[in-house]
Amino acid sequence: MAEGSSSRAETPVPDAETLQVLRDMANRLRIRAIRATCAGHPTSSSSAAEITSVLLYHTMRYLQDEPENPDNDRLILSKRLPFMDMVPGWLEQGLGAACGMAYMGKYFDKASYRVYCLMGISEASEGYVWEALAFASHYNLDNLVVIFDVNRLGPSSALPLEQCTALYKMRCEAFGWNTYIVDGHDVEALCQAFWQATQVKNKPTAVVAKTFKSRGIPNIESLENWHGKPMPKERVEAIIELIESQIETNQDLVPKPPVADSPRFNIEEVIMTIPPAYNIGDKVTTRKAYGLALAKLGHVNNRVIALDSDAKNSTCSVIFQKEHPERFVECFVAEQNMVGVALGCAVRGRAITFASTFAAFWARAFDQIRMAAISETNVTLVGSHCGVSVGEDGPLKMALEDLAMFRVIPNCTIFYPSDAVSTEHAVYLAANIKGMCYIRTSYPETSVIYSSEDRFEVGQAKVVRQSADDKVTVIGAGVTLHEALEAADELSKEGIAIRVIDLFTIKPLDAATIISNAHETGGHVVTVEDHYKEGGIGEAVCAAVSMEPGILVYQLSVSGITSSGPPSKILDKFGINAHCIVATVHSIIMNQII
Amino acid sequence: MAEGSSSRAETPVPDAETLQVLRDMANRLRIRAIRATCAGHPTSSSSAAEITSVLLYHTMRYLQDEPENPDNDRLILSKRLPFMDMVPGWLEQGLGAACGMAYMGKYFDKASYRVYCLMGISEASEGYVWEALAFASHYNLDNLVVIFDVNRLGPSSALPLEQCTALYKMRCEAFGWNTYIVDGHDVEALCQAFWQATQVKNKPTAVVAKTFKSRGIPNIESLENWHGKPMPKERVEAIIELIESQIETNQDLVPKPPVADSPRFNIEEVIMTIPPAYNIGDKVTTRKAYGLALAKLGHVNNRVIALDSDAKNSTCSVIFQKEHPERFVECFVAEQNMVGVALGCAVRGRAITFASTFAAFWARAFDQIRMAAISETNVTLVGSHCGVSVGEDGPLKMALEDLAMFRVIPNCTIFYPSDAVSTEHAVYLAANIKGMCYIRTSYPETSVIYSSEDRFEVGQAKVVRQSADDKVTVIGAGVTLHEALEAADELSKEGIAIRVIDLFTIKPLDAATIISNAHETGGHVVTVEDHYKEGGIGEAVCAAVSMEPGILVYQLSVSGITSSGPPSKILDKFGINAHCIVATVHSIIMNQII
Repeated sequence: MAEGSSSRAETPVPDAETLQVLRDMANRLRIRAIRATCAGHPTSSSSAAEITSVLLYHTMRYLQDEPENPDNDRLILSKRLPFMDMVPGWLEQGLGAACGMAYMGKYFDKASYRVYCLMGISEASEGYVWEALAFASHYNLDNLVVIFDVNRLGPSSALPLEQCTALYKMRCEAFGWNTYIVDGHDVEALCQAFWQATQVKNKPTAVVAKTFKSRGIPNIESLENWHGKPMPKERVEAIIELIESQIETNQDLVPKPPVADSPRFNIEEVIMTIPPAYNIGDKVTTRKAYGLALAKLGHVNNRVIALDSDAKNSTCSVIFQKEHPERFVECFVAEQNMVGVALGCAVRGRAITFASTFAAFWARAFDQIRMAAISETNVTLVGSHCGVSVGEDGPLKMALEDLAMFRVIPNCTIFYPSDAVSTEHAVYLAANIKGMCYIRTSYPETSVIYSSEDRFEVGQAKVVRQSADDKVTVIGAGVTLHEALEAADELSKEGIAIRVIDLFTIKPLDAATIISNAHETGGHVVTVEDHYKEGGIGEAVCAAVSMEPGILVYQLSVSGITSSGPPSKILDKFGINAHCIVATVHSIIMNQII
Repeated sequence: MAEGSSSRAETPVPDAETLQVLRDMANRLRIRAIRATCAGHPTSSSSAAEITSVLLYHTMRYLQDEPENPDNDRLILSKRLPFMDMVPGWLEQGLGAACGMAYMGKYFDKASYRVYCLMGISEASEGYVWEALAFASHYNLDNLVVIFDVNRLGPSSALPLEQCTALYKMRCEAFGWNTYIVDGHDVEALCQAFWQATQVKNKPTAVVAKTFKSRGIPNIESLENWHGKPMPKERVEAIIELIESQIETNQDLVPKPPVADSPRFNIEEVIMTIPPAYNIGDKVTTRKAYGLALAKLGHVNNRVIALDSDAKNSTCSVIFQKEHPERFVECFVAEQNMVGVALGCAVRGRAITFASTFAAFWARAFDQIRMAAISETNVTLVGSHCGVSVGEDGPLKMALEDLAMFRVIPNCTIFYPSDAVSTEHAVYLAANIKGMCYIRTSYPETSVIYSSEDRFEVGQAKVVRQSADDKVTVIGAGVTLHEALEAADELSKEGIAIRVIDLFTIKPLDAATIISNAHETGGHVVTVEDHYKEGGIGEAVCAAVSMEPGILVYQLSVSGITSSGPPSKILDKFGINAHCIVATVHSIIMNQII
């Protein structure tokens, strides 16, 4: 990165003429914001006009015609600016992604590009911001600059710290950041601050910019109750005329080109070259199978990276860390930021990113997950210790709502493997999917039921037990699939045959397989899941068959507030073990006879 | 609070004998932690033994036999301690609740009780902690003390700040806290610090306690890889013997009684004395009806309080604020902390608590909501601007997953009112429910369809349109109910009669009404919702009828990544308006004929 930095050192502050052009370009952005009234928020855009002008036309190095070029400096807008339609918005969630991009640049790409993140000031009340600030300083991300646009006003009132920039500075410094306070409307001061940031080693830089909301708009500047509102129509032209009168030049500035030192590589079509090395009957936890598969995948492609939030011994991502320590990112207990970092690493196709924690703790990052799914990046989230089968660790760590959460995320592919072989396939399939994936792994050991020749596809369920005489179709996943198989064994002793389906992916759901097998077994379906009923496997199946006449679905799932206990006993207590499946099948058959 | 504080001033540090008893009691707690191996985490419990001993037997004032007495000082354990089974754990989410309790004590109860929150150090990486720290200093919560148990080690490795207590102090001070660094195993220093905290006005106090994990346990103290693990069985007795050898006394200390100055009041049976003042046909948004109803409720009971996260103009909680400014808590943009504060205000039956924000932003607090629901407190969360009917504000603010999220919360009651009258009833019903409620309100105006005489019950749907000839049952809620009514009008012009059901509560769902009406309309049900399909109304209905033969459910819902646009057009675009309902009914009827 030395070369890039040194050439940046040449121009701390541009000449007077350029400074005026930067001022003029800021005012043109301001006018554009006022005209773009439908998009809302011209007031906050106006406070950031000079900051944006300086970043885009002086400080940042990028190819205007190639916005996706990996060598470009990155700009993350964590606040909405109507004049910046071309840059995707990261409503109040940009800093985590910026951290991910900066980490990628410094440690994986080892390239010259720098990362700039512009943040609104309401956002600084969000806790995740402080997770991200702690992360950036811990990892010495000196290629990262965050600009706090301190315009005093929140959506409905003045903010707690108002415009006390010294307090913002104190907080940033306490979080380990090199920090400057500047007048956010002074282009020269901004140029100077951004240049100084390039000279600081091993610390990220925060620029605390004192600004005024609606800057330059008479009778609106810095007043409350204008947030998100367009300018009054009858005043628009007069306001624009006033701003135009301050524009002195007609010039445009062209950004400097970046240093072309980002590595080029291929993350497409990651192929499983060696089949899974398990034997049928082996006892392995799917979380361990996940760690082993990921470590193996890491040898296939060197852009595979893994993140964890201080749970690596439990999620088994520690296995990847041991084999590829330089590609493991410890995010500590800060799940919201971890999702941001994962996304930041993955954008522009820079990495195949896996992030893991306890499945229950993904709930902490639901909003980040919701936003991350909108971008079509290659990010797979992995949640271990799902359901009551966690056992002794107790209800706080039992994920019983994660399927509901990930199912409602548009375009999210959900794998819920039931043995080590299918887990390994899930990892490889996820590595090839652009868009978010979720892999749900379990705490207890389960038997390997698939051979190394078995093939797996997204959206394709496996019929794992069948005969012509099957009376009921039982659908399971994870630990409950093994309970279903045990139930099948028990029932067969009584001469009752049942069909057993392993869903493999919960989303997309293999509706065709479910429906055809349901019809073949008299229309009787039993779903059994280590999850709450709402939004889980049972409801997904009910919805999938809801327009098919003649199919009835009996749902076994966890309900109420749970408690801890030995895994085997707890499955019985919450009604999702083999015994409960047998009882349900009995009652179905009895009702049929009657 | 003056009296309570002054009497606390009498005993900054106890005599030498008492100090020894405190040490001995700490060691007894330590032994209890080691013996309670099944509960896990003896190592972290051991680091906090002296802190707990000093708090429970010297500093805190409470009646041991009346743990729920409102005058008692509060202790919130945000980390797990096996020897404290009687105090509920708040796994890494205690500080928000502590803030709520302290706010309640200082501003609503105006009482002497103080609030102590013991936090593990991994937790300090969680962003929500910094939301809470900012909240407490902004509101000058000088009755709040947080103790950071800085034992260096996280679950899987050393933490970023290791034991750098000065850095923790710097961060706490930057966040506006009076801060002391103490040796967390020195009972005298702890007594002193907790006493000093009582003397500080207008600032909360942080005690940064340097401790050692597994303190007092040879060959384990301060080592990695012991997190959450029991002591090796063969060593337990020797370890206990060693700790016992340090115990010098056999005394017990009795905590001092609290100052009895908390107000007594009644928050049960809050009755609607004046019926809703709307006329059928009035155009009112349900969010405005919420604000008006809450303000009205505030006059019925003076322990009704409202919280918002800087969205009060949008959620309409500003109406409550204007009428009851002293009972409105601005939580700024920090939803996770807001849930904690709401919970903290509501525990021990101190308040009827309503907290509102954009429905989409509740996703940010999913884990806090999950935890809050476990406690049976009177907290109602309100989400405005649900669904695509938000219109122009765009996809980031469209809540399309909130029903899935709240449905999967055990025991959560979900109201989704469709007009102003039912919204007012929802508010009053929620005020009487112990446990979490969620009220989903909408952005656009809708017509009042109920009269002031109509009665509403939890779990009771309303059949709002019916005739003997109905061919299909259409189920709507919120804006889609009005679309269903419009569809009914259009279809009636063609001579087709449909039944229309307003669910009112999404959870519990009125399965009986759905099933009986479905059977009366040929088994044909159409659900239409301003929400994603997964975990929403359609799936809930599918699951409710899944064991009933002869019912088919057609689901209309939003899918994919959304975009912004005028509310009327966007309902059409995403297939959930009257036109789409008409088309679905047509196709059902045509298929029947064929």
